[in-house]
Parts: sequence; C-alpha cells; structure tokens
Amino acid sequence: MADTKRRNIASTPTANGLSVSTVAPEPYENKSDDVNNLDVMKDFKPGPLDPYRKRASFDWKQMRLFIDGEDVIRFKNKIWKTLENDPLFSRSYSTPSLSETRKLAFQRVRQIFAYNFLPDSELYTNPLKHKILTDSLGMYDWSMAAKVQLSVEMFGGVVTSMGSQRHEQLIEDNKKFENFGCFALTELSHGSNTKAMRTTATYDPNTKEYVLNTPDVEATKIWVGNLGKSATHAVLYAQLYTPDGSCHGLHTFAVPVRDPRTLLAYPGVLVGDMGEKIGLNGIDNGFVSFNNYRIPRDNLLDKFGDVTPEGRYVTPYKDPSKRFGASLGALSGGRVGITGMCTCNMKLALPIAVRYSAVRRQFGPSDNEIPVLEYQLQQWRLIPYIAAMYALENFSTTFFMDYVMLRIGMMAGDKSEKQAELGREIHAISCASKPLAGWLARDSIQECREACGGHGYFKVNRLGDIRNDHDPNMTYEGDNNVILQQTSNYLLGMYEMAQQRKGQQIPTPLNSLDFLANLDKILSSKFTSSTVEDCLNPQVSLAAYQWLVCYLMKDSTARLKQQSAAGKDSFTARNDSQAYYCRSLALAYIELNVLDRFVKLLEENNGEPTPASLQPVLTRLCTLYGLWSIEKHLTTLYQGGYITGSSPPRVVREAILRLCQELKNDAVALVDVMAPTDFILNSPIGASDGQIYKNLYGAMMQGEDVLQRPDWWREFVNKPVIRQPKSNL
Amino acid sequence: MADTKRRNIASTPTANGLSVSTVAPEPYENKSDDVNNLDVMKDFKPGPLDPYRKRASFDWKQMRLFIDGEDVIRFKNKIWKTLENDPLFSRSYSTPSLSETRKLAFQRVRQIFAYNFLPDSELYTNPLKHKILTDSLGMYDWSMAAKVQLSVEMFGGVVTSMGSQRHEQLIEDNKKFENFGCFALTELSHGSNTKAMRTTATYDPNTKEYVLNTPDVEATKIWVGNLGKSATHAVLYAQLYTPDGSCHGLHTFAVPVRDPRTLLAYPGVLVGDMGEKIGLNGIDNGFVSFNNYRIPRDNLLDKFGDVTPEGRYVTPYKDPSKRFGASLGALSGGRVGITGMCTCNMKLALPIAVRYSAVRRQFGPSDNEIPVLEYQLQQWRLIPYIAAMYALENFSTTFFMDYVMLRIGMMAGDKSEKQAELGREIHAISCASKPLAGWLARDSIQECREACGGHGYFKVNRLGDIRNDHDPNMTYEGDNNVILQQTSNYLLGMYEMAQQRKGQQIPTPLNSLDFLANLDKILSSKFTSSTVEDCLNPQVSLAAYQWLVCYLMKDSTARLKQQSAAGKDSFTARNDSQAYYCRSLALAYIELNVLDRFVKLLEENNGEPTPASLQPVLTRLCTLYGLWSIEKHLTTLYQGGYITGSSPPRVVREAILRLCQELKNDAVALVDVMAPTDFILNSPIGASDGQIYKNLYGAMMQGEDVLQRPDWWREFVNKPVIRQPKSNL
Repeated sequence: MADTKRRNIASTPTANGLSVSTVAPEPYENKSDDVNNLDVMKDFKPGPLDPYRKRASFDWKQMRLFIDGEDVIRFKNKIWKTLENDPLFSRSYSTPSLSETRKLAFQRVRQIFAYNFLPDSELYTNPLKHKILTDSLGMYDWSMAAKVQLSVEMFGGVVTSMGSQRHEQLIEDNKKFENFGCFALTELSHGSNTKAMRTTATYDPNTKEYVLNTPDVEATKIWVGNLGKSATHAVLYAQLYTPDGSCHGLHTFAVPVRDPRTLLAYPGVLVGDMGEKIGLNGIDNGFVSFNNYRIPRDNLLDKFGDVTPEGRYVTPYKDPSKRFGASLGALSGGRVGITGMCTCNMKLALPIAVRYSAVRRQFGPSDNEIPVLEYQLQQWRLIPYIAAMYALENFSTTFFMDYVMLRIGMMAGDKSEKQAELGREIHAISCASKPLAGWLARDSIQECREACGGHGYFKVNRLGDIRNDHDPNMTYEGDNNVILQQTSNYLLGMYEMAQQRKGQQIPTPLNSLDFLANLDKILSSKFTSSTVEDCLNPQVSLAAYQWLVCYLMKDSTARLKQQSAAGKDSFTARNDSQAYYCRSLALAYIELNVLDRFVKLLEENNGEPTPASLQPVLTRLCTLYGLWSIEKHLTTLYQGGYITGSSPPRVVREAILRLCQELKNDAVALVDVMAPTDFILNSPIGASDGQIYKNLYGAMMQGEDVLQRPDWWREFVNKPVIRQPKSNL
Repeated sequence: MADTKRRNIASTPTANGLSVSTVAPEPYENKSDDVNNLDVMKDFKPGPLDPYRKRASFDWKQMRLFIDGEDVIRFKNKIWKTLENDPLFSRSYSTPSLSETRKLAFQRVRQIFAYNFLPDSELYTNPLKHKILTDSLGMYDWSMAAKVQLSVEMFGGVVTSMGSQRHEQLIEDNKKFENFGCFALTELSHGSNTKAMRTTATYDPNTKEYVLNTPDVEATKIWVGNLGKSATHAVLYAQLYTPDGSCHGLHTFAVPVRDPRTLLAYPGVLVGDMGEKIGLNGIDNGFVSFNNYRIPRDNLLDKFGDVTPEGRYVTPYKDPSKRFGASLGALSGGRVGITGMCTCNMKLALPIAVRYSAVRRQFGPSDNEIPVLEYQLQQWRLIPYIAAMYALENFSTTFFMDYVMLRIGMMAGDKSEKQAELGREIHAISCASKPLAGWLARDSIQECREACGGHGYFKVNRLGDIRNDHDPNMTYEGDNNVILQQTSNYLLGMYEMAQQRKGQQIPTPLNSLDFLANLDKILSSKFTSSTVEDCLNPQVSLAAYQWLVCYLMKDSTARLKQQSAAGKDSFTARNDSQAYYCRSLALAYIELNVLDRFVKLLEENNGEPTPASLQPVLTRLCTLYGLWSIEKHLTTLYQGGYITGSSPPRVVREAILRLCQELKNDAVALVDVMAPTDFILNSPIGASDGQIYKNLYGAMMQGEDVLQRPDWWREFVNKPVIRQPKSNL
C-alpha cells in the first residue's frame, strides 16, 4: 500500500445548486485540470501573523504535501468546502437547545449520507481515506461524525463481520439509510466488565423467536449512541439461553427497536434519550430495556455461534472464552479511530492557541509590547505539544494503515499465526495509544485554553467545546487505565519469551519489540550525553526509552512475583502491580513506539524520501517530543541507575528549552500545516488571518440579545425587602 | 481571633411562608434549643455506602465538628436549608437557555440580598463567615455567588476602599440593591499588563466633569462580570488626563452605565453582553465602550489621587508606581477567595467520585464483583486528592484569617513596616496558592470525572459543570503562570536577604520563611529514610520541601545571574529563568506552606487541641499529601543530591500506595465530612444515600422529551437521494 496516500483522484465536473433535503448534493470540486502542488493550498491573507510566517524555516505547503499527500489534501478540501457551501452546515454564534442540537446533527448526518463522499470504489483505492473522512467530518463536529460511524461501522460493520448471508438485507438497508443503527453493549451497572452483562435472549422453539428481557433497572442498556432518538436497529449484546435452560454466554443480535416508517418504538421496547452530556450533544445517547420482546431466530448474528431451529446451540469455537474474544476482536478498530480523533483535537486546539499567542502582545522589555509567544514560558507550555501533535499525526496514520492490513487479512479469512500475532500486537498498541493520545490531547487542549487567558474561556473560541467533546475519549471503548493493562499483560508475556530466548529476535509483525534481542545489553547501558548539544539528537531519548521499557518489564515482573510470594491471588497481585509498575510500562512502550515511528519519518514517509528542506524542523520536533516525554520519567531513570549525578536533568531540560526557542519561529507555520480551514476550525481568535480582536469583537456583537435590555428588568427596579437582623442578636 | 470559629449564634424564631419576590424571606433555622454537638449533623440513610461507613476509623461528625466548628456548621445548614426550601432555587434536570440562565441567576442574587444571611453585626463577630457564605452559595452555583461578590466586593468594597466620604451614598445604595455594580479593568487587548489599559478620562474644568473615551475597539472594556445585563454602575479603570494634556496614569472611577429605573444604557455608553462562556453562564459578563461620555468630578475614587476643580492633579503618593501598587493592593483578596473556591470544587467533585467508587462494582477475584474503590489503581487516583482537599481546606481557612488580619490593619490605617511586610507575604502566598489550588482542583475534578467512567460524562452528575465553572480560576485575578512570578520575585529577594544575614532569622509576619535561618544546614542535609516505615511521618516530606525551596532559591538565583552574564537584559533574563527554575520555586514554596499548616493541624485547630481519635487519620492524610506532592519533585531532589541511589523513589512510592490502602476504608467518611447536603451537591451518583443507579435512572427518566418521538421523524422517513460515484472513476 506504499503509493495509496498520494494517488490522485480524477477531477469531476462541478454542479451547483446544492439542496438541503431531497436532491443529492454535489461536493465541491477543484475545477482546475492543471494540477500543480500548490493549487490545492491557498496562501493566507496578509495580516498580523505575517512576521512569524515569514520567519519560518520551511515551506508550510511543502510540509503539508509531505505529510498528507496531494490526494488527501484534495479529499479534505472537497469535504470541507462542501460543508462550507451548504447552509445546513452553517455555523452559529450561539448554542442551540438540546433538542435543536439533536435535530441539526441528524439532518447533517442525513446530508452526509447523501453526499456519499467516499464511495466503496474510492475507499478500496485508498483505505486511508476512511480515516480522513471521519477525521475531516469530526473536526467540523464530532457528534455528526460519530453518528455516521455508529450506524455505518458499529451497526452495519458489526453485522457484516459477525453475521452471515441472512443479514445482507439489513446491511443493504443500512447503506441506503433505510435503517439507522446503533451498538448496545454497556448496561447501567456494567461497562468494563463486558462479560457480566445481564440482558437475556431466550430461544423459543415454538415460534422460532428469541425473547429479549431486561432483568432489572440496572441491566438497562445505556450510553448507546444514536439510540436516544434516531436509531431503528441495534446490535444488542445479550446472554443467550436455549430451551434446556443453559446459558451460552454473550451473543449479538440485530434488534429492531423503532419502526422505520414512524420512528415509534415497538411494543415491549422501552427506549429513550439519556439527555444532556458534558459534550457531544449532537449524539442522542439512549437507553433501552426489553419486556418479553420477541425477535426472529435469524436476528442472531451467527458467525460465532447459532441455535438450530429446534433449539440446540452450535458453535465453531470449542472454548467459550475464545469465542468471546473473537467476537470482541472485531471492535478493536474503535481504539485505532480514537487515537486519530485525539490527534485531530490537537490539530484544532493548537492552531488556536499558537496563532493567538503570536498576535497577543503583553508587556515587553521596552514600551513596545511583545507577542506572548516570545516568552520562554509560553513556548515551553505550547511547543512540546506541537511536537507531540506531529508525532501523533504520523503515528495515527501509519498505525491506521497497520490496522487496515489486519482487516484485509480478516476479510480474506487469514487464519495464520502471523495474522493472529498481528492482531495481538495491534491490540496491545491500540490499548496504549488510545490512553496516550487521549491524555496528551486532553492536556494540550487544557494548556491551550489556559494559554489563551480569558479569551480562551469565551465559548465562541471553541476550546471548551473541543475539551468537552474530547473528554469521553478517556473512558469509552475501554477506560484508559483499564485497557493499559491489556498492553502490559502483552508486554510481560513477551518479556518472559525474551528471557527464554536470550539474545534472539522477538519477531512481531510490526517490529515493536525488536530491541528485546538486546535486552541484557540495553539493561546495562547508560545515559552518555553530557552536554545540551549531545542531547539534540532523537537517538538520545530513543535509547533511554528502550532502556526504560526493558527496565519496567523486569521491574514489573519482579513486582508481580513479589506480590504473589506475599500470598496474594493472581487477581490481587496484578491489581497491586499497576501504579508505578505495569501502568508506567504500558505508557513507556507506547511513547517509545510513537517516537520510533517519528524517527523513521525523518527518513521517509510512505516510501517517499523526506525532503532535505524539511528534515531540520522535523528533527527538532522529533527530538523535542522524545526529550520532553522522557523528562517525565527521569526519576525512574535515576532509580534504575540509567542516569546518575546532577547533569542529566540539567542537559535534558536545557535542551527542551533550546528546542522550544529554535522552534518558536516555526510554530505558526507548523500549526498552519495541521489546521483545517477557518470554517472548520471555527474560532475567532484562531482564524488564519490572525485578526484576533476584530474577529472576536465581530462574533461577540453578532450574538443573541447582545445590546437589549433583559426582559426581567422590572425585577431589578422593584426592590427586594431585605431581612433585618433580629434585635436580640 | 482564636475563638471566632466556634462561637454559637443565638437561635432565632422560625417563620415559614417564604416568598419569591417582595416579602423578605426568613432563612431556615434549627429550632432545637437543646444544642448538642450532634443535632446539627444528621445520620445518613442506610444503604449501599454502609459497609465503608462502618469500617471508618473515626467518627465523621467529630471530624466535621473539629474542622468547621458548630457555629459554622449551623451557618452552612441555615444557608443550604433556606435555598432548598425556596422553589426559586429548585434544581432542574435540564439546562436552561442562556437568557433563562441569566435571568435565574439574577433572581436568585436578588433573593440572596433579601435573605441577608450575614448582617454586619454577625460578620464582625466571626469574619470567617464571610468566606463560609461565599463558599456555601458557590457550592450551590458559583455564578450566583460571584454575582453577589462582584457587586458587593468588587464594586461596593472597592468604592469603599478607594473612595472617600463623597461616595457614601453609592455604597449605601449598593447595600440596598438600589444600584448593582461591577468592576471594569480588563480590555480586549490587555489583561495581565494592567498598566497598559487605554480607556481615557479627561477632566473638563468648564463643566467639572470627566469625559470618558474608548480610543478604539481593542480598548473596549471586556470580561466585566455583571455588566452584560444587570449592572447599573461600574468601577472603571482609565488613564487620567488633566487639561494640561498630561497623563497621570490609571485611576478608578465610579461610572453609571445604566439607568437604575429602566436598566437602559445611558447615551454615550455602548454596553452589552459578551455571550456564552465555557461555564459560569449565570454571570452576565459584559463589554463597554465610551464615546465622549461625561461623569461628574466627584466620581473619581480619590483615595490615591484627585483633580482639583480647576484641573490640577494632586496625590498623597510621590512615586506613581507606589500609587498604582497601593490601588491594586486593595484587590489581593480575590486570590485568597479563589483559593477557597478551588477547595470547594474539590469538596464537590471528590464526594461524587468516592461515593460512586464505593458502590460501583466491576470484576473481582471470584464471581462476586468488588467495589472499584478496592482497586489499588482507583485508590491511587483518588485518595491523594482527598488528602490534598484536607490540606487545602485547612490552608484556605487559616490563610483567610491571615488575610482578615491584614484587612483589619488596613481599615485601622496601620502604616507600620510590619503591616507592609504582612501585605507582601500575603501577596506572595496568594500569588502561589491560587495556582496551586487551581491546578490541584482542576486535576482532581478531571480525575474524578474519569474515575466515574461513562457515568461521569452524564451532565446531570455535575462533574462537567464543576470543571467548566472551575476553569476560569486558572486565568482570572492573574493568570496562574504570570502571578507565580510575583511569588518567586519575593522569594529571591528574601533569599538574598538570608544570604546577607547568614544564620539569622528572617522574621516574616506569617513565619513562612523561618527555616531560612538554617539555610546552609538545610542545603547540606540529605534524605535519610531507607524504609517505607521511615517515610510514614510528615516530617520526611517537610524536610525534603525545606531543602527543595532552599535549593531552588539558590539555583534560580544562579540561573538569573548566568542569564544576565550572557548579556540578556533583566526583563529577558527573568523570562528565561521561569521554566524549571522560578516557577518550580514558587510552587515548592506554596506546597511547603500548605504542608506546614497541615502538620500544625495535627496538634491543634484554632486553639483547640486535635482530638486523639482524629490524629491517626489526619496524620495519614498529611503524610500522604506530603509524599505525593514531593514525589513529583524527585528528579530535582536527585539533581541536587538530596537523594541518591535506587531506594528513595521505591520507599516513597510504596509509602504512597500503603497510605492509600490504609485510608481506603476511611475514604467515604472523609468525603462525608466535606460534602455539602445532597441538594447542594446535586449529583445522582454522588448522593449520600449511595443509590447510584436508582438516582441516575430517576434523573434520566425525568428529563425533557425522554420517550417522545422527535418532531423531525419525517426527515428520517423521507429518504435522501444518495449521490452515486461517477462512472469514470
């Protein structure tokens, strides 16, 4: 798939006259046939950001072309311009009511279906576009993007991968918007412990139906995106019972919940809207409970098990835990996708804060105030996150393509050990990349919000919405702290293998543990940089991370043994080896992986050599990401003897400050590369023209009821009677 | 003021029949005359939290009585019960529109004025009640509490402290709600750099008026709380010009902006509502610009300078910078107050997360699932924040009383050097306590939100609102990162003095730097704890912090000298010595101060000896707070040679885990002590009955439009026409 990212799509004729409701709308197309690398990227308007843009050490268009490729740039342009030109997607300066928010999101989702931005033919040519589409829609509004995904992937995709021929009509209808789907797993009292779900599906051989029941309130399915108002069908997880009374564990069913002709719930189904969340309020999260609700036998998704018409359970898996694992394995794409979403949120927040910081002036050595970006403290707060954004952008793209490889193998029915190993490695990486990217984005959004001072708190500047919409990434598709244990479990297993095979390669399909062949050598290595200059090389932190991962593997293994030796059962021993041990290990491993991929980007991207003109700035970013990340582990580096004396923190920290300083003049161009269009970014202080005050003032003056007297003015004029203190006091 | 916290207020007869609008309402009073320590605190309903409550090592009522004192408990009860009994303060399960939110906040503020919870007579008896009142109202809704404060303190209080006899009527009217005030300093393009404000006030001797002008859009006053819709008067900061054309710098004016009889703006005043913010939307933040708007000469607040009727400037201050400093000094209470607000937000968030964690069960060593609070990782995430909450509760109360001492001196006209030193020390402490408390609360709220998994993202559980309302504490009343420099500047000055006076006491009024007498001895001290048991003593982290502060003083001083020696001007040298140096110093100093006050609490609170039965749990909390805080500085402790080898992080981290484990059974009782009533807390999963699922389900089912079909259902039924890919693709 080396050349997939750069393939050009054929240009198509443009049609105008977009319609909101029934006529299939045409996406915006760039008309020019004379394609050169530049016509897909426009110059920015001259303005207050010019001084920084002129001082940049590289050409932002060249960087963007290198990172995205022309095909992707055109695809993004098409999506974003189409939305911008359609009044249904027009932005408002005020927040609609909850029901209006639900409605708008639904209408926009419907329109996205109509636009059909990525027909299958185009998807197969360049699978990366699947990610680009979701991310590009999400940067406009994650609620809208998620609603599409929930119906198409979490319903349609899951029915495809877990069902069989008998479900083809459902899938066809899903593509045509004849049904609208959702995914119902979580219950009110169970989330992480998926096996403990208590909704039941009991087969009735007399009518050849399953009878669905919710045993009590706590087993109500909840948090189901799309279910609140709009879904007609759900993929439902329920405990399967056969007539002999035996339970065969969790299975999935395609369950009609609302009549597609009326959107009214079927009798026996109590389905409703959960109401307001902290963010993502375009998504109608819902709940559902069942009261002797009957669905046909065919509605069981039967890839992993089925019940014969007579009521006998049959399954290709002998081991129930393997069946369960296989059925959940189809969902690992969620974490891969979230890793990309997190990166996108940094691509929204950082352009806002960096552009603002480049224009906002406050204090100065003389009467002339200087931009706050000139302050070392502001650089130190923001620029490492720019480096992290580049690191994660590269990681999430290359890792998505690794995942595509896994999916292709799954679709082709690859049952090889290598395919299984790839599955395990991707599971391990994604269970750590979601937490890492989630927390990095969380912290960078918050730093951006604070770095913009009071104006960062203005809702119209969007940092609050970015934060509130980003927030659930910490807990859904596996709580961050819980899923990190999946990664560390994998790593401890690999460590055991490495010890057994001393000195031999541990060949994993993605090579993330190749260095284990040198385990002993790495464990006895030391930090050797004695000057700031020594540290200005990404190999410094790469070597430190290899040591750190090896050390934490060894240390966590010892911890586990010690806990067991103290008489704890394995469940407790493992729980008591998370903080400072397994949890740190999983995070160190993923940081190393992200860094390692970044180092490779300094050489080439997707088969194309990295232009020499971009190497210096990318090297600085990569070095900064590595040092800034490893700096948080210095205590453990001391503890394990990898560093000693007073010099290491000094040189590492000074190198971080120096790199921030060196990247300061590139900061604006670096966010220009990553930022979406102004319409998509939708932040007055983050707009590419840098007119922070004009834009903000304009937005403020066009709000609702800005200058009017409030309608409750008489309540001020009629004075309250103020209670007087009792005289006996 | 030793006995102020525990004095009992006389009980007063109760009146029922509360009214929303014109009749002065009566606060709730506890009728019982037979006061014993227990009747002010009710037992909790039996329920799922019982097991933890029964396992607690201490009596939560005794703890609450020790922390708050009976007088304060009664005062809080009165406020909270009064609000709960008044339908105007009734809670809703859905978010009102922005204009409805503004209206409700205003109506409630008006009612708070009517309730007159704290008449002056009672305030003078126990000044702490000023803080208790603000905090108790704020825990219901910070918007409402802030609106009261903005009019009473930031307008009425500032006019009192900066004006003179000629402003008495304004102050009287303010108390009677005849005017409603706000404080207008910040401009669109200037916040931190207060001196650079550009609004002008030019004296016209012909009419004896000041002519106010806003030179351009960027000088628009903005972010002014209460100004959006409700304020009639503003304290305005403007550059004062006399007829000779000379500028005398920033001065304050009492400026009528709206007619109190109509709430319509006066001609020449463009005043409006900024619109929605990330949170605190009950506060109508506004903007104002002036166009040759005239106000009488008397409206200058003349304590720090005046213009004679003829137009000559007169001031008691010869040095303009001192005048400016004195005028801003009156505002330092803001940071003291915010430190308390931050603590309150932890007192909201932690009860929610801890009670939820004590009831929520997930996984377990057998089929019986265990409460998530049993997991070491969950303990490690939450319990250190409980310790920090106790540390900050004690800090913010004692520090508020220090501030009261300063204010009493100011009111008494104390011009002594000791009073000035107290002002400087309180300034230094408050400029660091606001950032520390702000960031600790920010991080604890986020951890609580994530620790509650998906349900933490449900708006009705309030963690999002707590976070969004807490957020501006990071940036207003001085951006955290900017004001930390005030603290480090003070400390570097004191360090210089300590070096000059080698071995002598540095007597500051609050004794926060007494240890500097042992500077050299401290700098040569080492960490001596070699076992976990050694670490289970708060003196261990106290000693480490003393070393850390001394080390960072020395290191930051060296850094500054080195930067200057490299040819940087003093402005740049200082800016380039913040990250890893001065910033770390200021934070270490305040952490030490908070810890030091906590250690004193182990002996006594406000003159009362600490009950022996509470000492064990308080000692664990104090020790945990100290170790958990110093753990973040271990790298610097290594760098400076205070610790060496592999043992220190191991024993410190193991001690943290052990303390979390030891405090686990006390966690629920510890948050019971700090939590407000369920009505005030307003979180279904955080309610004191522990009925997390029943409460949540009940709240969900009573939302708006829960079960109805959406009114846009036809838009689903009418199918979109989906664009087909071009055949030439």
